[in-house]
Amino acid sequence: MALMYINTIWVVLAAAMVLFMEGGFSLLEAGFVRTKNAVNVTMKIFVDLTIGALAFWLIGFGVMFGKDAFGIVGTSLIGSPEKITLSIELPSVAFVLFQMGFAVACISIISGALAERMNFKAYVVTAALICIIIYPLSGHWIWNSDGWLAKLGMKDFAGSAAIHAVGGFAAFAMAKWLGPRKGRFNSDGSVNVFAPSNIPLASAGAFILWFGWFAFNAGSTLDASSSSLAPIAINTMLAGASGGSAALFLTMKKFGKADPSMTINGVLAGLVAITAGCAFVSEWSAVLIGAVSGFLVIYSTLFVDYLKVDDPVGAVAVHGFSGVFGTIAVGLFDRSAGLITTGDFSLLKVQLLGAAVVIIWGLLGGTFMAKVCEKTVGLRASEREEEEGLDMSYHGIPAYNELERFTDLPTSLFNFEETTGVTVAAPVTSKAKAAD
Amino acid sequence: MALMYINTIWVVLAAAMVLFMEGGFSLLEAGFVRTKNAVNVTMKIFVDLTIGALAFWLIGFGVMFGKDAFGIVGTSLIGSPEKITLSIELPSVAFVLFQMGFAVACISIISGALAERMNFKAYVVTAALICIIIYPLSGHWIWNSDGWLAKLGMKDFAGSAAIHAVGGFAAFAMAKWLGPRKGRFNSDGSVNVFAPSNIPLASAGAFILWFGWFAFNAGSTLDASSSSLAPIAINTMLAGASGGSAALFLTMKKFGKADPSMTINGVLAGLVAITAGCAFVSEWSAVLIGAVSGFLVIYSTLFVDYLKVDDPVGAVAVHGFSGVFGTIAVGLFDRSAGLITTGDFSLLKVQLLGAAVVIIWGLLGGTFMAKVCEKTVGLRASEREEEEGLDMSYHGIPAYNELERFTDLPTSLFNFEETTGVTVAAPVTSKAKAAD
Amino acid sequence: MALMYINTIWVVLAAAMVLFMEGGFSLLEAGFVRTKNAVNVTMKIFVDLTIGALAFWLIGFGVMFGKDAFGIVGTSLIGSPEKITLSIELPSVAFVLFQMGFAVACISIISGALAERMNFKAYVVTAALICIIIYPLSGHWIWNSDGWLAKLGMKDFAGSAAIHAVGGFAAFAMAKWLGPRKGRFNSDGSVNVFAPSNIPLASAGAFILWFGWFAFNAGSTLDASSSSLAPIAINTMLAGASGGSAALFLTMKKFGKADPSMTINGVLAGLVAITAGCAFVSEWSAVLIGAVSGFLVIYSTLFVDYLKVDDPVGAVAVHGFSGVFGTIAVGLFDRSAGLITTGDFSLLKVQLLGAAVVIIWGLLGGTFMAKVCEKTVGLRASEREEEEGLDMSYHGIPAYNELERFTDLPTSLFNFEETTGVTVAAPVTSKAKAAD
Repeated sequence: MALMYINTIWVVLAAAMVLFMEGGFSLLEAGFVRTKNAVNVTMKIFVDLTIGALAFWLIGFGVMFGKDAFGIVGTSLIGSPEKITLSIELPSVAFVLFQMGFAVACISIISGALAERMNFKAYVVTAALICIIIYPLSGHWIWNSDGWLAKLGMKDFAGSAAIHAVGGFAAFAMAKWLGPRKGRFNSDGSVNVFAPSNIPLASAGAFILWFGWFAFNAGSTLDASSSSLAPIAINTMLAGASGGSAALFLTMKKFGKADPSMTINGVLAGLVAITAGCAFVSEWSAVLIGAVSGFLVIYSTLFVDYLKVDDPVGAVAVHGFSGVFGTIAVGLFDRSAGLITTGDFSLLKVQLLGAAVVIIWGLLGGTFMAKVCEKTVGLRASEREEEEGLDMSYHGIPAYNELERFTDLPTSLFNFEETTGVTVAAPVTSKAKAAD
Repeated sequence: MALMYINTIWVVLAAAMVLFMEGGFSLLEAGFVRTKNAVNVTMKIFVDLTIGALAFWLIGFGVMFGKDAFGIVGTSLIGSPEKITLSIELPSVAFVLFQMGFAVACISIISGALAERMNFKAYVVTAALICIIIYPLSGHWIWNSDGWLAKLGMKDFAGSAAIHAVGGFAAFAMAKWLGPRKGRFNSDGSVNVFAPSNIPLASAGAFILWFGWFAFNAGSTLDASSSSLAPIAINTMLAGASGGSAALFLTMKKFGKADPSMTINGVLAGLVAITAGCAFVSEWSAVLIGAVSGFLVIYSTLFVDYLKVDDPVGAVAVHGFSGVFGTIAVGLFDRSAGLITTGDFSLLKVQLLGAAVVIIWGLLGGTFMAKVCEKTVGLRASEREEEEGLDMSYHGIPAYNELERFTDLPTSLFNFEETTGVTVAAPVTSKAKAAD
Repeated sequence: MALMYINTIWVVLAAAMVLFMEGGFSLLEAGFVRTKNAVNVTMKIFVDLTIGALAFWLIGFGVMFGKDAFGIVGTSLIGSPEKITLSIELPSVAFVLFQMGFAVACISIISGALAERMNFKAYVVTAALICIIIYPLSGHWIWNSDGWLAKLGMKDFAGSAAIHAVGGFAAFAMAKWLGPRKGRFNSDGSVNVFAPSNIPLASAGAFILWFGWFAFNAGSTLDASSSSLAPIAINTMLAGASGGSAALFLTMKKFGKADPSMTINGVLAGLVAITAGCAFVSEWSAVLIGAVSGFLVIYSTLFVDYLKVDDPVGAVAVHGFSGVFGTIAVGLFDRSAGLITTGDFSLLKVQLLGAAVVIIWGLLGGTFMAKVCEKTVGLRASEREEEEGLDMSYHGIPAYNELERFTDLPTSLFNFEETTGVTVAAPVTSKAKAAD
C-alpha cells in the first residue's frame, strides 16, 4: 500500500518536472533564434502546453494506450484516458499526466526546427496533429504492450525512438517543405549561420531541460521500487556530461573556440541518446554513448546544412540523429542482450528495424502535417511577415522593449464597451484608437 | 510509519516548489513592467521572501492556525509555530514551511499591481502587514477548523479564495489608492497600454509558476495517501491549458494577434480558478473552469482599466476575478455537492458568501494597508522618482547595463575603513568618491 | 523495504535539484559580470557540469569515500564509485549522483571569483583539479567516517566547511594569483565597482539556488526517515530569509538604497552559513546565524576589496567567510553541544580547528591550482582578450546579439566536406569562408 503512495508522488513530481521542460525548450529556442522571432517561439511553446496538451488528453492518449487494433492503433480510451488499466500500483491519472508531458515534449522538439518562418496558425494545426496522431501512433507501436514493435521486443525505455527520433525526423521533413529562412543559403551553395540572439537565455533553457531529464528518464520507471531508478538517473547525468565534454573539446580543437551552441547541443544530444538505454546499459556505456552523441551532433548539424534544410536550433541533429543513435546503441550495449556486451545480434536487429521505422514515420508524418497545413491555413509566413519578424507580425510586440513604447494591444482593438455592450461614461479607447 | 516519511518528503519538496514560485513572480513581473522598474519589482519579491517570510513565521502563522477565538482569530502559536498539532502524520515544521510559501505568494500577487510607482519602504510595510494580518485572518476563517467560514462548510482546497482572491482584491484597493502610473490614462478617458519590456523573461516566470502550481495544489493534500493527489495534479494541468487556449484563441479571433501577455494571464487565470476546486471537480469540469477563466481574465482586465485602476501586470484580473470565479465554481461543479452536478444549492450559497467575504476583506485590507503606509513612510514614489524609474531611485542601478558603467555602490558610500573604524594604509574609496 | 524506495526517490530528486543549482550559478554570474564576459561564465558552468562531473565520478569520489589511508585520503573506489557500501538503505549510485552535485557546486563557487580575466583552458584544468583532489581531500577529512576531522567529531552537516569554505578560500587564492581585472583598482588605492550587467538574470539565478538549497541541505540526510529532515528545510528557509533581510536593511540604512547585489548575496550568505548546522540548531538560531551572515557578507566583501583581491561576484565573501562563520556557529548553537546552548566548549574547539583547516586547505589548494595552470596552459587571458571580452575571445559570440549578425561558427571553420572527406556536389562554405 505504501508503494502506491510512493509511486504517486514520484510520478506526479516527475510529470511536473517533465512539463517544466517546456520552459527549457522555450528559453533555449528564444535564445537561439534571432531577436525578432523570440516571442513567436515562446508562444509556440504555449501552444504546445495548452492546445497540444488538451489534444493529447482528449484523443492522443487513447490512440496510444487504448485497446489495440492490428498492433497499429488504439481507440478505446479516447475521451476518457483515466480509464486505462495499469499493471503497477499507480493511479491512472498520474500516468496520463506524465504522458502528457511526453507528448508536449514531442511537439516542442519539432517547433525549434520550424522557427523564424512558419505561419502561426499552421503551427497550431501541427501541434494538434502531433498530439493526436503522430506521437500516439509510433508510441502505440513501441510502448503499448500490444504494439507491433513492442511485440518484436524493441527496447526504448524513455523514448529516444518514440519521442525524440520521431520528433526529429518529422521536424526534418517539415523544415524541408517549409524551406529555409530568407538569406540562409547563398546561391553559390554556401551557408550563412545566424548568430543566436541571447546565449544566457539559451543556456538557462538547457539547464532546465537537463533538470527535467532526470524525471523524463527515471520517471519512466513509473515505479519507485524499480531497481533501475537510481542507475537511470546517474546514466542520464553521465551521458549529458560526456556529450557536452565531447562537443566542447571538439569545437576547441577544431577551431580554437569553445562554441556555446554546440556545447549545449552536445549535452542535449547525450541526454537524447541515453534516453532509450538508460535502464539497460552500464555507466561506462552511458559515458561512451554520450561522447559519441557529442561528436555526432556536430557532424549531423553540418550534414543537415549540407542537405540545404534549415534547422535554426539544431533540433534534427539533437533529437533526430541522436535519438536514432541512442535507439541503436541499446542493441550494442544492453547489459543482457547487446551485441558488444553479449555477442548476440538479435536485439540489435530489432533496434535497427525500430530506428528505421521511426525515421520513416517521422519523415512521413512531417510531410503529412506540412501538406495539411499547406492545404488549409498556409504553411509559411509571408515574405513581409518574415522580414518584419514573426513577433510583430503575429503577436504585435517585440521580445525586448527597452524603449517606453505604447502598444495598441489589447485595449484599443478590444474595447470593453464595444465587446460587452455595457455603456460606460467615459470612452475606453487607447491613444492609438483615439488617433484614428 | 512509512507514511510519515512519505508525507515529509512530499510536503518539503512541495514547499520548496511553492517557494520557487517567487522566482516565477519575479521574472513575470520584471518582464511585464517597463525596463526602468524591473529591478524594483525583483527587489520586492526579495522583500516577500525575506521580511514577509519571517513575519509570517513569527506572527502570521499563529494568527492563522493558533487556538481560535470567536471563529475570527488565532493567537496561541505566535512565536512558536512549530507547536501546532496536526491531525495527519506530518512533522509540524513541514506544514509551517509549506504555509510560509502560501503567505509569501499572497504578497507577490499584490506586488505586481503596485508596480512602477510605489514607495519602496511602503512596500516593505505592506509585505509585513499581509503576512501578519491580512492573509492570516482570512486564512483563519477558511482553513482553521474553528474558523467561521470553515464551520459553514466553505470549500477552498488550495486557496482560490484564501490566497488569490484576497490578494487580488487587496491589490485592487491599494492600486486604487496609489493612483495610476503617470501617463497611463489620458484626460479624455482613453487608456495607454505600456508594452511589456521583456517577453521571454515574463514567459520564463510563467513556466516556473506553472511548475510550482502542481505543488501548490497537490501539495495541499499534505498527505501522500490522499486519493485526490493525482487527480488534483491533472486538474491543475488541464485548467491551465484550457485557460491559456481560451485566451489565445480569443485574442487571435478578436484582433488577429496571439497576444503573449493575455495568453500567459489566461494560463495563470485557469490555474488560479482551479485552485479552490482541484480536489473536488472532474477533469471535464477543470477544463471548463479553465476555459471560462481564460475569457474572464481578458474582460476583467478591461473592466479594471475601465474603472481607471492601473494594474501593470493584470494581477487583479488573474488572482482577484479568477479567484472569486474559482471559489464560486466549486459550488457549481463539486462532484458531491455542486449545483450543476447534483442540483443542490446549499454549497453554492456558502461559496457565494465566502466569495463576497474575501472580496470585502481584500478591499478593506488593501485600503487599511494603503492608509497605514500613507500615514507612516508615504505610499507613493515622488514624481521625480517615478519619472527616473524606481530602479535608479531606490536601488541605484539599472536592470540591464550593457555599457561598461561604474556604479558607486556599495564601495564609495560604504567604506570599509569608515564603517569598521579599522585604519588602513591606502584609502579604499571609489572613483566616484575620489572625485568629490 | 518501503524506506529503500522512499530514500531512493528522495535522493534522486534532491540530486537533480542540486545539479539544477548549476543553472542558478550560471545565471547569477552571467548577470553579475559585464556583458562582454557573460557567455564565458556560462560556458564555465558547462565545464563544471561536464568535465568536472566526469572527473569526480571517475576519480574524485574514490579519493573522498574510498577506503581510508592515514585519515587523509581514500583510494579504493577510483573508477568504480558505485561499489561504495552505505550504512543506510539507499542504492549506492544515488549517493554518487548526489555527491556529484556537491563536487560540481564546489567548482562553481570558485568560478565566479575568477570571472572576466581567466584563460579558458586554465579553467578547464581548474575544474578537473577541484573535482579530483581539492574537494575530495577535505571532503574525505570531514565526511569519510575515517577522516581525521570526522574522528575528532567535527560537525558539518551539508558542507559549509567541506564545500563552501574550501571553495571560497580556494577562490580567494586563485583570484589573488590571477590579479584584478583591468581598471578594477586605481593607482591611488581606490576601487572601481563595475555595475552588474543584468539584474533580473542574476536574481533568477538566486531563486534557482535557493530552490536547490532545500535539496542541498535536507537531501544530505540521504534518509527520509531522519527526524531532522523537515527542521533542516525550515532552518534553510529562515537563514536565507534573515540573511537577505539583514543585507537589505543595512544597505537601506547605510546609503539609502536597497542594493540588489548585496541583498542577493545576503540571502546566499545566510544559506551558506546554515549549511553546516541546519540539522543541529534551533529555528531561532537559524534566524540569528542568517542575520549575522547578512551583515558579514557586506563587511567581508569590503575587506576583500581592501586586500586588493578582485572577486567580481562576491564569492569569497558569500562562500568563504560565511562558510567559515557557519562552521564555527555550529560550535556555538548546536542544540546538544554548543557553547552558547550548553556552556560546553569542546565542540567549538573542534569547529574552530576545522574552520582553520578548510581556510588553509582552500588557500593552499587555490595556490596549487594557479601554479599548475601558470606552468601549463597559462593562467590569465591576454590583455587583448580581456579588453575585447572573453565572450568573443574564447567563444566567438557575444551574449546578446540584437543585430542580425552572421557568425562564422561553426560552419565556416568546420566544414562538413573537409571534415568528413565526403565529396559533395555544391560546396558547403559560409559567407565568411567564401570571402577568403
